[in-house]
Parts: sequence; structure tokens; C-alpha cells
Amino acid sequence: MTKIHELDTPVVLIDLDRVEANLRRAQEYADTHGVKLRPHIKTHKLPQFAKRQMELGAIGITCQKIGEAEVMADAGITDILLPYNILGEPKLKRLLALARRTSIKVTADSTTTIDGYSRTFAGSGIILPVLVECDTGGGRVGVQTPEEALALAKRIAGSEGLRFAGLMTYPAKGMAAQANAWLERTTALLKEAGLSPEIVSTGGTPDIWQSGENRAATEYRPGTYIYLDRFQVQEGVGSFDDCALTVLATVVSRPTDTRAILDTGSKSLTSDTLGLQGFGRIVEYPDAAIVSLSEEHGIVDLTHSAAKPEVGEVVRIIPNHVCPVSNLFDEVTFVRGDDVIDTVPVAARGKVT
Amino acid sequence: MTKIHELDTPVVLIDLDRVEANLRRAQEYADTHGVKLRPHIKTHKLPQFAKRQMELGAIGITCQKIGEAEVMADAGITDILLPYNILGEPKLKRLLALARRTSIKVTADSTTTIDGYSRTFAGSGIILPVLVECDTGGGRVGVQTPEEALALAKRIAGSEGLRFAGLMTYPAKGMAAQANAWLERTTALLKEAGLSPEIVSTGGTPDIWQSGENRAATEYRPGTYIYLDRFQVQEGVGSFDDCALTVLATVVSRPTDTRAILDTGSKSLTSDTLGLQGFGRIVEYPDAAIVSLSEEHGIVDLTHSAAKPEVGEVVRIIPNHVCPVSNLFDEVTFVRGDDVIDTVPVAARGKVT
Repeated sequence: MTKIHELDTPVVLIDLDRVEANLRRAQEYADTHGVKLRPHIKTHKLPQFAKRQMELGAIGITCQKIGEAEVMADAGITDILLPYNILGEPKLKRLLALARRTSIKVTADSTTTIDGYSRTFAGSGIILPVLVECDTGGGRVGVQTPEEALALAKRIAGSEGLRFAGLMTYPAKGMAAQANAWLERTTALLKEAGLSPEIVSTGGTPDIWQSGENRAATEYRPGTYIYLDRFQVQEGVGSFDDCALTVLATVVSRPTDTRAILDTGSKSLTSDTLGLQGFGRIVEYPDAAIVSLSEEHGIVDLTHSAAKPEVGEVVRIIPNHVCPVSNLFDEVTFVRGDDVIDTVPVAARGKVT
Repeated sequence: MTKIHELDTPVVLIDLDRVEANLRRAQEYADTHGVKLRPHIKTHKLPQFAKRQMELGAIGITCQKIGEAEVMADAGITDILLPYNILGEPKLKRLLALARRTSIKVTADSTTTIDGYSRTFAGSGIILPVLVECDTGGGRVGVQTPEEALALAKRIAGSEGLRFAGLMTYPAKGMAAQANAWLERTTALLKEAGLSPEIVSTGGTPDIWQSGENRAATEYRPGTYIYLDRFQVQEGVGSFDDCALTVLATVVSRPTDTRAILDTGSKSLTSDTLGLQGFGRIVEYPDAAIVSLSEEHGIVDLTHSAAKPEVGEVVRIIPNHVCPVSNLFDEVTFVRGDDVIDTVPVAARGKVT
């Protein structure tokens, strides 16, 4: 059996045992706390893992792009939330085609978006469930007040071809309690108006172990929990030993006593810092710091590392942020310990639309 | 004819007239100043543009990965520099296969790398030209002193299957003069030892209009000059009107009076800042600021923009750094003005090895 150190680098390694443990741990927590999981597949972009998430008890999946949802529908996934304002004729046509073959829900935070959905689905014989996206403090997409949410809910409910299906938010990190209060106020307002939300969807891996406290929510959308990464470890979601995705890299140069160069730059690890110092953790040299990246080079400062790697040595890196790493590689390699199990295409990679 | 505003977004637009103008301007400068260009294809990753660069007078091309060189060799390019330490049996085997069908040169900054080349090419019937990579102040890969360069040059010259072909450096921005002095000292040392370098290769788009001053160099490797980007404009290499690559985006949300959300996040624009504020320039709203990105959202602050886009509006973005953007899209769309000419695969995208 091939061993990981025989692989050409850089290559993304996915430890199947850790994936299974991470998925089970989250599903057990969810089952214990009465949380329904709707995992976000943006992290792995792999139909086989989406199916495993469903087998273990997820109620459906979340995709961010129609192209991702198409891949997952092809793989037989039948309950997909697309938490995005879908705009423009090309995407609306694809959304309708997708709705003809799988159960898909979308979101909106404007009348423009809602009217586009209605124009597309009216007379199609299909009713599109639409959730109102709420900005509960994250400062990204979403209506700003419960009153705005109510107004859009009414517009959805009154639009041909659409059904008001509930509320969706992506809560800011550490603001789960504030988001919950926001959603509770909005739910009360909607109930008064006879528009009780069937679904109240929230999410985020950083707060996953507190997801049972979101009393306003009916479902939770974690993404990164399947692999974890350096950021999630810092957030306390798991340990480095739980991290299931690593990038195998080769030391290609040791120009000085305190500098090593890896064959993994921003084209492998991305420039994402998520507020962390450096660009990843070298498993074998935890005191070494990946201080900067160019596209094909990772510059490592060995000043504080007593052990120093040699040219040609192969190391494993835990990225700061795994989701965009999945988007950079056409294939990933499944491993168990040091054994190479399989190499598979990242089927939903690069789906920009 | 399809107009760009009819395209689904996000999509990368390449303005063919601007590409041609940028390539001609650089080639004319090079011809006037006696500089030989060896363009780096990492920026465009397109065989058709590599061929155009050759037609206009480039002496060869530069690739950063064997996978890129394979694509370019398939397209008929016959003079390729791979300025990287190639290590590991899988890559060395591919390098030999590539050398059997095209002219390829590589670099080394360690005996480990040199010995791997020699082990691979000895007895193959092919002599591999090897340049010594020099760290002339950039702090990345490369030998630290002219004396180290000489020692490696001797080792290459004495290794079966190899030929010492010269020196290569990637000079730090604004350090071209320092790099030139370094290379002159090293060239003198090599000449004394009877190892006069045939090639002295330097590069970088930021200093392209001073490349005629590098008297120690025999060739120049610019990459980004073909498209330019927000960083290069800040560096004074060209103007925004010269930028040939833009990302067409849709405004998907206007949650507040001063906030707009684009459907272009780090999965389209990358998190690269290159020291700039924000993540790109919106051509139609130059006073708007793309203040943060998540994977699929670009958050725009409209505070200082009198004009404000509406939901559904389509805008063009000049990225901070175009090279990694080319790596994120399976296809790019060629345009002239507002006319869509063609959509082509980015043939050398995603070549991680």
C-alpha cells in the first residue's frame, strides 16, 4: 500500500478516520441537544461526504452556488438550501431546472430578488420555498430589522410561485445569543401576522458546541466541522489531532540556518489569515512559523524551532482555513494514518456560478 | 453579438485589445533597450497568450510548475525556464520526459537538488541546463553569497547529465539595483573560475520599465505586465485603463444605505492584499471600497461613494493581484470593449505539481 510520504507534493490529504469522528461527534451532540444539522458542503465539495453527512442524520445540505447544488443533486441529495440571493436570468433558469429534480430552498433580502424568483417560478407548476435572510449582527447580507423581515415575508407569501419558508442568518462569531434574540423577536412578529416560520436556519462551526442554545432555530448549518483547521482549533472547536485535512509539502530550499522554503504558497494554502499570525501549522515542526507566502513558495522562519527540516523533507501543514483550500485542488487524497486509500476529484470545486 | 453585461457572474473578462497593447508596449521597450523577455505564464496560464508573447519577440517562457510546462510544451512552446528546485522522484521523472520533447532549463540552490537532477539525467542522453538561484535581497529561495553560487556552479559543471547554464534571481521590489550589483559580482567570480554564465535571468513586472538598467542580466521575466492589476497600478507600471483583466460581479444585496454585497468573494478575488487597503477596485464606483471578503461575498462600503449601485446591477472589478485570480476560474472570457468574443479554458490552471 502506498504511504503518504511517497506522494508527489503539494497534495491535500484527508484523514478518513478523523472525518468520520468529526461528523459523528457533531451528529451525536446534535441528537442529544435536539439540533437538526444541515451541513454546508462548501468545506469539502465532495458528494461522498455529503451523502455520509445525510446517512449519519443530517436533514439536508447547504450549498452556496447553483453549480455546487447541481453536483450534489446529481449525486442524489434531495434537500438543499441555497442561502443566497439568486439574481440574473442564467442563474434563475438553472434554479428552476434544479427545482424540477430536487427539493431546493433559497433566500432573499430584497424585493428585487423575490420578484425575480416569482417571475421565474410563476406558472412553472413548482412552488419555490424562500427564506428571508437576516443580518443579526454579522454585517454581511440580510434585512436589518424584524419589521423588514416581516415585510419581505409578506411579499414572498403574496408572490405567485413562491412560499414563505422561514428565516436564515449567518451569525457573527460569538454573537449567537444576539442572533437568537433577533430571530425570536422576528418569529414572534411573523406569528402575529400569521406567517409562522417553518424553518429558522442558523449556523457556523465556531459556535457548534453551543448550537443547542439557539432556541429560536430549527436547524444548524456547520461547514468546517468536518475537517477543522488552525482557526477552528484556536476557537476551541477541536484540537490539532482532530484536523482531518492537511497539505503535504516538500521543503525545497534551506537558504539559511533559520529559513526554509516549502512548495506550498498561496496557490495551495490561500492568503487567508482569519486574524491568525502566519499561514498554517507545520505538524512536524510546530515551533516553525510560515511567515509569508508567494504563489508557489511558503517562507518558513525556523528561529524558534530547535528541530530544522532538510531539503527534500516532506511535512504536513494544517491550513488556517480549509474551505478555500478545497477549492484550489482538482483532487484530494483519502488516507488512513500513513496509508493512501484513494484519490478522488473535488466534484464541486470551482463552481463560481 | 453577446455583450458583457449579459454574462452570468462572476466571470473573468480579458480585454484582448489591452492585452495586445500591454504586450507590445513591453516588447517595444525591451527591443529598444536590448532586453530579452522571457514572460512568466503564471499570470495568464493560457497557451494562446504564451504563443502571442513568443510571436512578438519573447525568447522563451517561464513556468513555475512542471504541470504548467507540460501544457505549454503541448502547445508547441520550445524554450521553457522552470525557476524552481525540482525535488522528488515523481517530478524528476516528469522533468526528464519533458526534456525529451522540449528545451527546458531549471534552477537549484542546494546540492540536494543538483544531485537529484544528475541522478535523473545521467545516462539519459540529455544534458539538463541548470541555473543557480540567487537570493539577491528578496529573502526567499537562493544562495546567500556569490561564493556559494560559485560552489554550486562548480558542482553542476562537474555533475554527469548537467550543464551549468547561469544565474537566476527574483529580485525584491525596488531592489533591482542591489540585485544587479550582486549578479555582477557573482558573474565576475564565475568568469575567474572559467564558468562564465550564459544566462543571467532576473524579472518582475514592478521594475519592468527599469529592466534596461540591469546590466548584469541577459533576460527578464515579467508576468503580470500582460494584464496589470491594482497593485501594479499603484506601483506606477500602468494605469487603470491598461488593466486587461476584470472580474464581472453582480450586486446581490444592498442591506443598508452604505453597504453593498457583491457575488465575488475570496473564491473569485483571493484574499491577497499585497499591502493595499481593500480587495479590488470597482471600475464603475471607484470611491466605493471592497472592505472585506468571505468566500462568496464581497462587502462594499459605499460611505465615500456618492453614486450607489442597485441590487442586480453588474460591475467590473480590477483585482489587487491578477495571477491567483487566473488560478480560480476554469474558464475566462475574451472581450473587446463590451463585446464578448470567446470563452476559453484556462489550460494551465490548477497545476499544483
